[in-house]
Formats: sequence, structure tokens, C-alpha cells
Amino acid sequence: MVTDRKPAPLPRVVIIGGGFGGLTCARALRRAPVSVTLVDRSNHHLFQPLLYQVATGGLSPANIAAPLRSIFHRQQNATVLQGEVVGFNLPAKRVLLADGTLNYDWLVVATGATHSYFGKDEWAPAAPGLKTLDDATDIRARVLRAFEQAERIDDLQEQRRLLTFVVVGAGPTGVELAGALAELSRHTLKGDFRRINPADARLVLIEAGPRVLGPYDPTLSAKAAAYLHRLGVTVLTQKTVTRIDARGVVVRDAAAEEAIPAATVLWAAGVQSSPLAQRLAEAAGLETDRAGRVPVGADLSLGAHANVLVLGDMASCVGKGGKPLPGVAPVAIQQGSHAAAMIRRRLRSQPSTPFRYYDYGSMATIGRSAAVVSMGRLKFAGYFAWLTWLFVHLMQLVSFENRVLVLFQWAWSYLTRGRSAWLITGKDTRPTASAAAPSPTP
Amino acid sequence: MVTDRKPAPLPRVVIIGGGFGGLTCARALRRAPVSVTLVDRSNHHLFQPLLYQVATGGLSPANIAAPLRSIFHRQQNATVLQGEVVGFNLPAKRVLLADGTLNYDWLVVATGATHSYFGKDEWAPAAPGLKTLDDATDIRARVLRAFEQAERIDDLQEQRRLLTFVVVGAGPTGVELAGALAELSRHTLKGDFRRINPADARLVLIEAGPRVLGPYDPTLSAKAAAYLHRLGVTVLTQKTVTRIDARGVVVRDAAAEEAIPAATVLWAAGVQSSPLAQRLAEAAGLETDRAGRVPVGADLSLGAHANVLVLGDMASCVGKGGKPLPGVAPVAIQQGSHAAAMIRRRLRSQPSTPFRYYDYGSMATIGRSAAVVSMGRLKFAGYFAWLTWLFVHLMQLVSFENRVLVLFQWAWSYLTRGRSAWLITGKDTRPTASAAAPSPTP
Repeated sequence: MVTDRKPAPLPRVVIIGGGFGGLTCARALRRAPVSVTLVDRSNHHLFQPLLYQVATGGLSPANIAAPLRSIFHRQQNATVLQGEVVGFNLPAKRVLLADGTLNYDWLVVATGATHSYFGKDEWAPAAPGLKTLDDATDIRARVLRAFEQAERIDDLQEQRRLLTFVVVGAGPTGVELAGALAELSRHTLKGDFRRINPADARLVLIEAGPRVLGPYDPTLSAKAAAYLHRLGVTVLTQKTVTRIDARGVVVRDAAAEEAIPAATVLWAAGVQSSPLAQRLAEAAGLETDRAGRVPVGADLSLGAHANVLVLGDMASCVGKGGKPLPGVAPVAIQQGSHAAAMIRRRLRSQPSTPFRYYDYGSMATIGRSAAVVSMGRLKFAGYFAWLTWLFVHLMQLVSFENRVLVLFQWAWSYLTRGRSAWLITGKDTRPTASAAAPSPTP
Repeated sequence: MVTDRKPAPLPRVVIIGGGFGGLTCARALRRAPVSVTLVDRSNHHLFQPLLYQVATGGLSPANIAAPLRSIFHRQQNATVLQGEVVGFNLPAKRVLLADGTLNYDWLVVATGATHSYFGKDEWAPAAPGLKTLDDATDIRARVLRAFEQAERIDDLQEQRRLLTFVVVGAGPTGVELAGALAELSRHTLKGDFRRINPADARLVLIEAGPRVLGPYDPTLSAKAAAYLHRLGVTVLTQKTVTRIDARGVVVRDAAAEEAIPAATVLWAAGVQSSPLAQRLAEAAGLETDRAGRVPVGADLSLGAHANVLVLGDMASCVGKGGKPLPGVAPVAIQQGSHAAAMIRRRLRSQPSTPFRYYDYGSMATIGRSAAVVSMGRLKFAGYFAWLTWLFVHLMQLVSFENRVLVLFQWAWSYLTRGRSAWLITGKDTRPTASAAAPSPTP
């Protein structure tokens, strides 16, 4: 007998964060019998692996970002909310927003990471990091303003400082930033200035560890260092930064302390979990690890709260060999799929399964036409690695329009070394510098 | 007999402003025996006629801007300086910069216009105008934030206020802005939200004069008004704005005063010359006109200073029939060519000639697929006018790369109503609004 009754309301899945993890999870639930709400502070998903290209003028913000509403336009079971999450009430199954609350049956938290200045937050104004579109356009404007000021100044010492660019941290982001800055000053800006030669710019990449691309295979690190050297980047390894201010950077090694006067310092050294990780851990009665990450179970669930899943850069998840998984996009993407699978399984009363990370490899590009790629036992570098890098990144861009536009802009700038995205926008955010060189700490 | 002597230094032409006038003048001097220095506050030339498309998410900043250095890359006799001009010493032939001076033999001043709030500068925070890339991305973020907040709010009255968009001034910019906002809310955002219907947005275009597109032929004004009506824009003519604040707008006509609660108000009503016009006029012992423009001679020269030429929106230049020329791109472009010709003639000791403006017509677009075009006696509207508008604007973009990219993005968004440039960036700059409606002035 058919009765005329209302269907039971769908289980509510609230996903916090529209990065790789949250986005993948929400999309993987598109045919699940749930109602999905994706909450993010910003209105767009950002393809962070290419953010350094916006910071160095190769691409435009719209090329690497896609509005979340546009991504979920056709996914009828998904709602997008732009909002600021401030806390959690796990027993009541409630997310606290800056201006309201959201009830959930399932909660997925994936708010990623932010820069860490290792307790030296006073370095932030002089050494911005690269996490958002606003960071990228701010860095782009800083770099350009330095060249513009150098063109106008007569004081040779100050001109030298303006033409010195320091990148702190030689992980993939630092290496890619330094490579792109080298490409820019050596080639793209050639002939654009009349009084300075941009190729005279001094590029310094500072790394506390013994080599660039520390987590990669040593042979690839050596290749990357060689490419950087060829591009004219001075790589300083085993140097600790002891001071950053508007005048520049002071570094120290076992032997001595050295001041590097520089108008532009970029921070690519440390990340820590977003502040929400701390609040989530507290709400669950857990402790975050040293990087501020939330410990999760094998199935990504949060302690005793089986209906809360944590993933991406903010989750401390142990991989093969007991080592924590790295904070990279593939981990977040695979965890997003896994979280969605866990929800679907549990809705069918099936037990959850442990998350397993498949490491397809890692890669980094150094300037134009060179990259290093590590895929399982396969490790290669050079032009073919660069094409691989190009292809993989292009295919992962979330919208087809962006894929076509980015391909066009890459092809264009490869052929012409064009620089249409080379715009100074926004207010000058640099701290005021005296012309004096930074002095070593007393 | 050949003597080994240095060539005489080239006459120095300093051009202030990299808009249509300054850019055209500098490029027209590329083969002249002069040394050109182009000074601009920003590092890019901006194609202002398409700025409203950035403000409404159709195009990206880099699509309509081109770095000045890139434009003059190959022009060996041209130098670009990013700098802030603060004054003039005409007897000493010297331009005063915020941090230095520039000597000239010829001076071309073309710094354009800025918004005018008719003495009500306190309206500016609540009703931004559209002149720079930063203005455009700020307006884009305001419009988007209003939709995002409306989606989240329960208070129906406040939701209505958030979904009300007011454009003040129905000249070409105001009409194009209102049309683009209508297109956006009626079509582009369709299906993107779950709780609000963006098509319910109320769009109000306020004009103090008797009709939209006042300077155009009345038949075209009527066509434009009809297109706006079809797109659901409420056009209020012969209404004076008496108040703008964070709550909305108060308008008045002969009969009564009315409050229009609105979270987003855009200013397209008035322009005045850039502040430099005043300083230049003072330096020359002249008085600016009501709009702050500098009176110029028939050959665009400044009073007794035959070696100073003033052009574009900041010049008060009389056209046929004694009417001052309008502040539009074609006037600035033709004056830029004329200024360059004057310099070349005088270098050959030829007398200067009066400037004559050739009016090729004017056009404005209203949403997707409709425009009005007036070319001499030819006046037409509709789809073909829109194609004309498209073609003319595309061909005028300064770099080929931008032409291809803009064509692609237009084709793409025409076919898909895509919105890749639909990004919220930057800080929220809106003044805080209480939920109360604005009250008529006492």
C-alpha cells in the first residue's frame, strides 16, 4: 500500500573548507542521499600549486580560482555558504559561525594550513607568505614596486637593496618562487627598464636544512639546485634566519652572522594548521601535534566522534612506516574521497575502512622549461619533467574554461615572454624601510 | 670636415598620465627626435570603457590593462617612470614629483578625471565610483558579498536591502553597469543560490536629468531605456539624490522624498578633473572651469606656455558650435596625436595648428546582445549595434594578447554564461550598515 507521507529529511553533511579536501569530498557525495553544505571564508576554490605564478605575474587570479557556487551550480544536493567558522559544539552536533550556527549529522573539517613564522609573527609584515589570492597580488605588487623604485633611485646602495629578493624556505613553494623570480628578472623584464638592468637583481634562497627540496630524493635536490644556480639564484643552505625587518634579513650559520639588505623578502618556510584545528581538538578533548594538526583515526574520524572527519593539511594522519603524511594536495584530495566513502558506507551501515595514501609522486618546476619529477622509482628532471608538470597541473584545474585560458597564457608567455598579468594593484603594504642595512642582532 | 663631437642632447618631452591621451602622444613620438618620459602613478594603461565588465565579473583586471613598460618595451626613445606628480614649476620647466624633479623641454599633461560627489565627499565610502582596477575589484566584491549575505540572512527586510543595487547616474557608465548587473542577477547567477533567487534583485538606476544617456540622441535614449526595462532595471529620471549612507539612498523629485534601502550603491554620476588640473592652472595663472578643467588654446597649449600641452578629460577644449568637448576616450586619443604633431611641427619650426575633433560617434551596451550606436547620422540599436560595440572595443585593446583573451572570454561567457572572474578579493571596504532603512532628511 502506498501511503502519502513526507520523505524523511536527508542526513546533513557540513563540510568546512573549499580547498582540495573539502571540494573533493563534496563532489564525491553528489549522488549520495545526503544534503551537503560547504562552508568557506572565501567564495572560491583556489588551485594553490599555481599560486606562485600569480605572485610572479605569469597568471591572473581568475586563471587559478573558480567560484565555489559555479563549481556546485549543478549539484542539487549541495549548498555553498560563505561564512566564518569560529568553533564547534560536538555533543550538540553544531558548528558555530561568526553570525549563526549550523546543525550537522556528519561533519567534515578541512580548513588547511596557514603560514608559521615559528613564533616570530613580527616578521610577517616584512616577509609575506603565499596562501591566498590577496597574498599573491600583494607579493606581485611588492616585487614590481621594488623594480620601479630601483629604476628611479640614484643611491647605488639603496638600489642594490631594492634589487635584492630573498625567499626564505627551499621547499617546493620556495624553489618555484625563486625560479620564477629569476626567470622574470633575467628574461621577462629584459629591456623594460632604461636605467637598471633587471638581470642584475640578486636572488637569494635561504634554507635551514642541508639541501633544497628536502623531502625529495637527493638526486632531484641536486638537479634543482643546479637549475637554480644556472638561473642565477644564490642558494644558502644550513642558514638560520635570525631577523627579518623592512631593511632585509639576517642569517646565521655555525660560523657567523650575515646581513642581507633586501627590500623584498618572501616567506615560504613554515606552515601550521589553521587556528580552527586547535578549537576542533579542544572540542574533542584531544591535543594537536607540534604543527598544530589534529590527530585522526585510521578512517580520518575524530577521536570518539565517529561522525566527524578531519582531513588535509590540518589532519595528523600516519602513513606507511609511521611517518605523518605530507601537507600536499594529493593527500587532501584522496582523503576527501575517503571521507565521502566513509559517509556513504556508514549510511549503508557498513563499517569504516582505514585511509591509505597512494603516493603518485611529487614535482616542482624551476623557471621556464625545467622541473624535477619523482614518481615512485621513476625520477627525472629537465624539459620532459617540465612538460609533465605542465600537463598534470593543467589537467587538475577545476574548470574547463580555466584550463583553456591557462594553456593559452602559458603558450603565449612561453613564445613571447609576455607579461599581461604584470599589474600593480592594491595599496602599498610594505613596512617603511630606512635606507640603512639591517644590523646583526647584538 | 668631420669633427668628433657629441651629438646635442635630444629635446626632453615629459608626458604625465598613461591614459588614452598620454599613451597615444608617447607612441606618436616614437620616430620623433626627442626623448620621451612617461610618468604615471600606476604601472599600467587601463582600457576604461571595459572597466564596468571587471566590476561585474565578466572580465579579469589583466584583460583590460597592459603594463606601460610592456607597451613601450620596443620604443627606444621612451622611458616609463612610476611616480606621483605633485606640482609644476613652469618658468624653470620642471615637474615636481613626490620624491624628486623632472626637467622638460616639452610638457604634456593628461591625468584625466576622477569622481565628483558634487561636494558630498562623505558619500564616497557608501557609493564607490569606477575609475581604477582597484575600484573595479572592490565593486565586484561588494556586489558578490551582498548576494552571499542575502543567501544567509533570515530577516526578509534586510535580505531585500541586500538584494537592492542602486546605480547613481545614467550616462554610458551607469547604463552599462546597470545592464551588466541585471544580466548577472537575471541570468548568470541563475541556479547558483539555494535560498534566494538572484533574479529577485532590485536594480535601480537614478538620473537627475530627464532621460538615460542624456548626451545621446533621444531615440537612442528611448531604446536604451526600453532595453533596461526589459532587463528589469527600474529607471528613475528627474530624481535628485539627497543622501547616501550605509543604509541606502534617499532621492527627491519635485513632489516628494523617497528612501531606497540598498546595501550596494554605485556612483556613476559625476566626474571632475584630477587635482593636478588645479595646480597646473595655478602655475600658469589661469582659472579652471566649473568641472575643474584647465582652459587650453586652440592648439591645446597652456596660456603663455607654448611648450606645455594639456589634453583629455582635464582640458577644457571648445569644439564645433562653441560647446566643450566631452570627456571621452576618442577626444583624448585624437588630442594625444595632435599634441605629438604639435611637438614635431615646432621642432621643425613650423607653426602650430588648431585641434579639430572628429566625432566618429558614441555607443553604449546594455546587458548581453543589446547596444545603442550613434555614428554621425547613423543611429542604430539592438544585436547588430552590440556586435559593433564588441568589435570596436576589442580592436582598441592595446595588446594583441588581451584581444585574444577577451574575445575568448566573451565567447565563452556568451555561450555558457560562465563567471570565472567572479571572485571576492580584498578586504571588505563597505561601511557598516545598521539594518534600519535610511530615513529621509529631516
